[in-house]
Amino acid sequence: MRVGVLTGGGDCPGLNAVIRAVVRRGTRDHGFEFVGYRDGWKGPLEGLTMPLGVEQCRGILPRGGTILGSSRTNPFSIEGGVERIKDNLAADGVDALVAIGGEDTLGVATKLADLGVKVVGVPKTIDNDLSGTDFTFGFDTAVNIATEAIDRLHTTAESHHRVLVVEVMGRHAGWIALHAGIAGGASAVLIPEQPFDIAAVCAHVETRFESEYAPIVVVSEGAVPADGSGMTLASGEKDAFGHVRLGGIGDRLASEIEHRTGKEARAVVLGHVQRGGTPTAFDRWLATRFGLQAVDAVADGDFGTMMALRGTRIDRVPLAEGTAELKLVSAEEYAEAEVFFG
Amino acid sequence: MRVGVLTGGGDCPGLNAVIRAVVRRGTRDHGFEFVGYRDGWKGPLEGLTMPLGVEQCRGILPRGGTILGSSRTNPFSIEGGVERIKDNLAADGVDALVAIGGEDTLGVATKLADLGVKVVGVPKTIDNDLSGTDFTFGFDTAVNIATEAIDRLHTTAESHHRVLVVEVMGRHAGWIALHAGIAGGASAVLIPEQPFDIAAVCAHVETRFESEYAPIVVVSEGAVPADGSGMTLASGEKDAFGHVRLGGIGDRLASEIEHRTGKEARAVVLGHVQRGGTPTAFDRWLATRFGLQAVDAVADGDFGTMMALRGTRIDRVPLAEGTAELKLVSAEEYAEAEVFFG
Amino acid sequence: MRVGVLTGGGDCPGLNAVIRAVVRRGTRDHGFEFVGYRDGWKGPLEGLTMPLGVEQCRGILPRGGTILGSSRTNPFSIEGGVERIKDNLAADGVDALVAIGGEDTLGVATKLADLGVKVVGVPKTIDNDLSGTDFTFGFDTAVNIATEAIDRLHTTAESHHRVLVVEVMGRHAGWIALHAGIAGGASAVLIPEQPFDIAAVCAHVETRFESEYAPIVVVSEGAVPADGSGMTLASGEKDAFGHVRLGGIGDRLASEIEHRTGKEARAVVLGHVQRGGTPTAFDRWLATRFGLQAVDAVADGDFGTMMALRGTRIDRVPLAEGTAELKLVSAEEYAEAEVFFG
Amino acid sequence: MRVGVLTGGGDCPGLNAVIRAVVRRGTRDHGFEFVGYRDGWKGPLEGLTMPLGVEQCRGILPRGGTILGSSRTNPFSIEGGVERIKDNLAADGVDALVAIGGEDTLGVATKLADLGVKVVGVPKTIDNDLSGTDFTFGFDTAVNIATEAIDRLHTTAESHHRVLVVEVMGRHAGWIALHAGIAGGASAVLIPEQPFDIAAVCAHVETRFESEYAPIVVVSEGAVPADGSGMTLASGEKDAFGHVRLGGIGDRLASEIEHRTGKEARAVVLGHVQRGGTPTAFDRWLATRFGLQAVDAVADGDFGTMMALRGTRIDRVPLAEGTAELKLVSAEEYAEAEVFFG
Repeated sequence: MRVGVLTGGGDCPGLNAVIRAVVRRGTRDHGFEFVGYRDGWKGPLEGLTMPLGVEQCRGILPRGGTILGSSRTNPFSIEGGVERIKDNLAADGVDALVAIGGEDTLGVATKLADLGVKVVGVPKTIDNDLSGTDFTFGFDTAVNIATEAIDRLHTTAESHHRVLVVEVMGRHAGWIALHAGIAGGASAVLIPEQPFDIAAVCAHVETRFESEYAPIVVVSEGAVPADGSGMTLASGEKDAFGHVRLGGIGDRLASEIEHRTGKEARAVVLGHVQRGGTPTAFDRWLATRFGLQAVDAVADGDFGTMMALRGTRIDRVPLAEGTAELKLVSAEEYAEAEVFFG
Repeated sequence: MRVGVLTGGGDCPGLNAVIRAVVRRGTRDHGFEFVGYRDGWKGPLEGLTMPLGVEQCRGILPRGGTILGSSRTNPFSIEGGVERIKDNLAADGVDALVAIGGEDTLGVATKLADLGVKVVGVPKTIDNDLSGTDFTFGFDTAVNIATEAIDRLHTTAESHHRVLVVEVMGRHAGWIALHAGIAGGASAVLIPEQPFDIAAVCAHVETRFESEYAPIVVVSEGAVPADGSGMTLASGEKDAFGHVRLGGIGDRLASEIEHRTGKEARAVVLGHVQRGGTPTAFDRWLATRFGLQAVDAVADGDFGTMMALRGTRIDRVPLAEGTAELKLVSAEEYAEAEVFFG
Repeated sequence: MRVGVLTGGGDCPGLNAVIRAVVRRGTRDHGFEFVGYRDGWKGPLEGLTMPLGVEQCRGILPRGGTILGSSRTNPFSIEGGVERIKDNLAADGVDALVAIGGEDTLGVATKLADLGVKVVGVPKTIDNDLSGTDFTFGFDTAVNIATEAIDRLHTTAESHHRVLVVEVMGRHAGWIALHAGIAGGASAVLIPEQPFDIAAVCAHVETRFESEYAPIVVVSEGAVPADGSGMTLASGEKDAFGHVRLGGIGDRLASEIEHRTGKEARAVVLGHVQRGGTPTAFDRWLATRFGLQAVDAVADGDFGTMMALRGTRIDRVPLAEGTAELKLVSAEEYAEAEVFFG
Repeated sequence: MRVGVLTGGGDCPGLNAVIRAVVRRGTRDHGFEFVGYRDGWKGPLEGLTMPLGVEQCRGILPRGGTILGSSRTNPFSIEGGVERIKDNLAADGVDALVAIGGEDTLGVATKLADLGVKVVGVPKTIDNDLSGTDFTFGFDTAVNIATEAIDRLHTTAESHHRVLVVEVMGRHAGWIALHAGIAGGASAVLIPEQPFDIAAVCAHVETRFESEYAPIVVVSEGAVPADGSGMTLASGEKDAFGHVRLGGIGDRLASEIEHRTGKEARAVVLGHVQRGGTPTAFDRWLATRFGLQAVDAVADGDFGTMMALRGTRIDRVPLAEGTAELKLVSAEEYAEAEVFFG
């Protein structure tokens, strides 16, 4: 059997570990051959392949990124895209696909599976917001990087009497902010699921100064102020210290807190540092097990499925289940941590 | 209500995070007061207390060790020990206990609960071998430290044509070896649950040299050779290179591999470095959630229970369930990773 | 003898290590007593003291920040400031001062020394731009943090075909950018001392894409475009991808590169993460030796001096020498690394 | 010009960074071609070559080990070895050599230079004991790894009332122990240059327990007890706790301390973890600059020289000067830190 492998969407530590596990197990235990498709769905769409075997996977386990490259190409938004994929798979002699990616990449996989393409999915999202699985690889790495940053900021906040705002990834879901905020001992965690009241945030910051704690506010990039509570400073206005803060929510929040509390505030926007580089042990273990199980699913003919962590087991769930809706932080989960922030 | 808190057994990153969560939630949401008992069960046995409130918990979240100290004292092996504990709890006005510890510490808690002491347990074992919970805090930190060590050893093994044996913790269970071995890309993982065949290990090492891979062997401190396969070198004998290797299984294994394969081998015994220092984000999050849930269990009068991670939920299970038997690596779990080692 | 100690200016890993060394040596070997002045020159100005002895220094060696607090207060810009300092020193029975700080803090120390205050200085600047010393503590930590970030960004740049711009500290001097750029294998390093030509930067980025290298551009916060080469996009305009990039040079540069090359670019602004948290071993060693030597200088009556690293020796140089002019990256030093960037 | 490059001796983080710098600069700025010799002096001795150009050096900057491999082969101890080297260099068309290594490797280089071979040396020793240079690359990485280990052990020592002995590298010189001991806040540092008095070490450990400090003893692998002070336990005897401690000085010291003080003691032997893996930023910077300067020396015809760090400059010194005698910790340097240990 000849199996194609591709990786799509944003970077995420652990992609190479999945690829390696798929190839090592498939080669040794199932006698498969592999074709690497480059740059996500662009690969099978345009026939961009690369050799993929045990040799190519040497030394890649601890490395970030993906040896296959990635893109956000969606064949369903391209005229005749699906046919071209089917034709290319046939031309390359590829019987089945392992697609590693997030909502978009697996969304394409789900539709292709419905159209008869033999595909197995491996969930990938740094934000941990895919349903059906307890965790996705890459998330633990991102949370550790954010937590280390918060650790480093604590002493500055305390010694230098500053408010520090840390903007972390999470466009729709606040998992990184919540976990890193708990792990880093933040004073407040603001997430997309719970619009925040800026006055309450500022009041809380001031309480922290009184008790001489370091006021560190962790905010998801997708967090928004509650209606009516909103931020008084327009983007680009000067604040009390003459600073102009622009760009993302982190910068705007720091500006607003300075303006309202009269305390100096600084924002740190971690950005792509959270997405790259070597994965944590947890993420390598999870990614490896996803890969092993995915290629076993191919061997079993269990197509249209996606791998999912449930407790310590790797289960196979229908692809559609994983991509149907985002997994958001519930009100109860947010409240659980409130004792540290309230 | 007045609640005593104690930590027992070996060191484990995350103990302070549990203590902080218990105290923060208990103080704010349940109006509890706390008494710190020093050095495990020795504290209530000998009436060794220390003040424990929000102030004492400041800044301890990222710190290894335990502000309460620890010991391996077992009141059941001391004449009149249980009565002294009951008397001291009464004298200190302590209504309930939160006991944080492993098999031994929670074993005592289980028996005391049977004797009417109001106690809630939080599982702690670096080896991850307590039943009833998916993971225990500290384990992820230990696995990461072992994985980083393996990462560092890879390049030396490759450049310098050496076999490197890494001995990790795990007296009865091979979880640390298995997870770090998978995450670090080891060539072989030897665990207590699966007695190893030394000839097979050496044959595998030689294969790795042929394919120019770095031969790294991860071994649990409790791993043993299979009957009859055994190690020919007695402890203390000189090997082919004139080295005398003594002490633990790591050193003996390195010696044996040198002797049988004629390749230079070195052992690295990670030891206590795996047990101390700052916890990973995962361990801080898990320890914090255990602490929150434990003090809620006290508030609910849910005594005789132990906290347990199940998927992403914290459940309460009977103390006896967690300490009845060790959680070992199953043959299936070991086989899953065999593709990388076989 | 009674010695006051203060720390001024921005945060810098190693401040606590200096304080501890001063106090440990001074107490044991010179029989000194110590007074902690809080928040830089604000302490002696307003008589803000705290107890400072061996006990207060326990456990602070690996911690970022400063137990004494800091500020940017300048007594020379306050009416009667110098007299108030002299009066407070006299009132506190303080015979001599150890002042730990950068250009501003040591500038004040220099002037006070001229006015008869017995003061010894310890240089502190994360930017490494103080003259007279090979290195200052904190710099090595900042460079390592920036290098780790660059390491993490490499794989994303390669897998995802992106330009990554990393903005690091360095308002007037490019030392952090130069060292982290060399250590991280950057494609280009832009520093304040060498105004850059944006067209050349973009041409270089495009070359890197052709050879499939990850184009990573490290830029000091104080770097500026050369006259006439300048950036065409005003702050706030939309770029080719519809992104509005604002704020610092990192964001503007990413925007400009996208606009000119048509390649996606992202900026990472490391900010305060570089300044806080635990110091590297080098910085702890250097800070400790500065502290030991500074209190020995007090014991020797060698006032008006500043500690300086020369090779592996700690020398005492006149305070004025260290603060007379900034230490900038020379054209030769910049050119040395050009082979990697050119 | 055709230049051969080789790396000899034990592993040391930064070797690849030197190789990359030599090749990048030599190719671009001097028009050189390169030949990689495998496994130290074994390469030119046996004619083992590999292609070496900009392509082979891609991505190696942050990696430990050496792409060229290493060995301890000494051509002067092999009949006709020197002639075979000369013949092979001639056969490979190699005009000059860059030899990267420690005392042994550079000792060979020194003798070959005297015999007319055109060779430039780059000093390499994890122990930092080569004369003529302030520091060697790899040392900073080793010190950081040892310091992180000590950091981790502190909390265990405190919480669990244990003595922890950390054995670090340093056969003849105590630099790693001294720097890591200062940086990690050790209670005592024992080095080869200063034979230790075991009774004094134990007395000091007991004092530390009284003041509730964590007693951490850092010991170089080459440290020895002073005559007459010696260790009473023979290797292999049972100590007070029934433990048998064998092997290196770390294990024996832990055993002896237990025996004499009645306090539980544990040894951690860091071993090869100190030698492998990614270099710190300092080591990458130093290794890169050594490489740039070494290939410039070849271009200048400045043979028989070795690169040396002096302050922040890279100087060229005669090869013989660097290998004439070991650089040891002086009594003054040891005494400087004594305040923390005494």
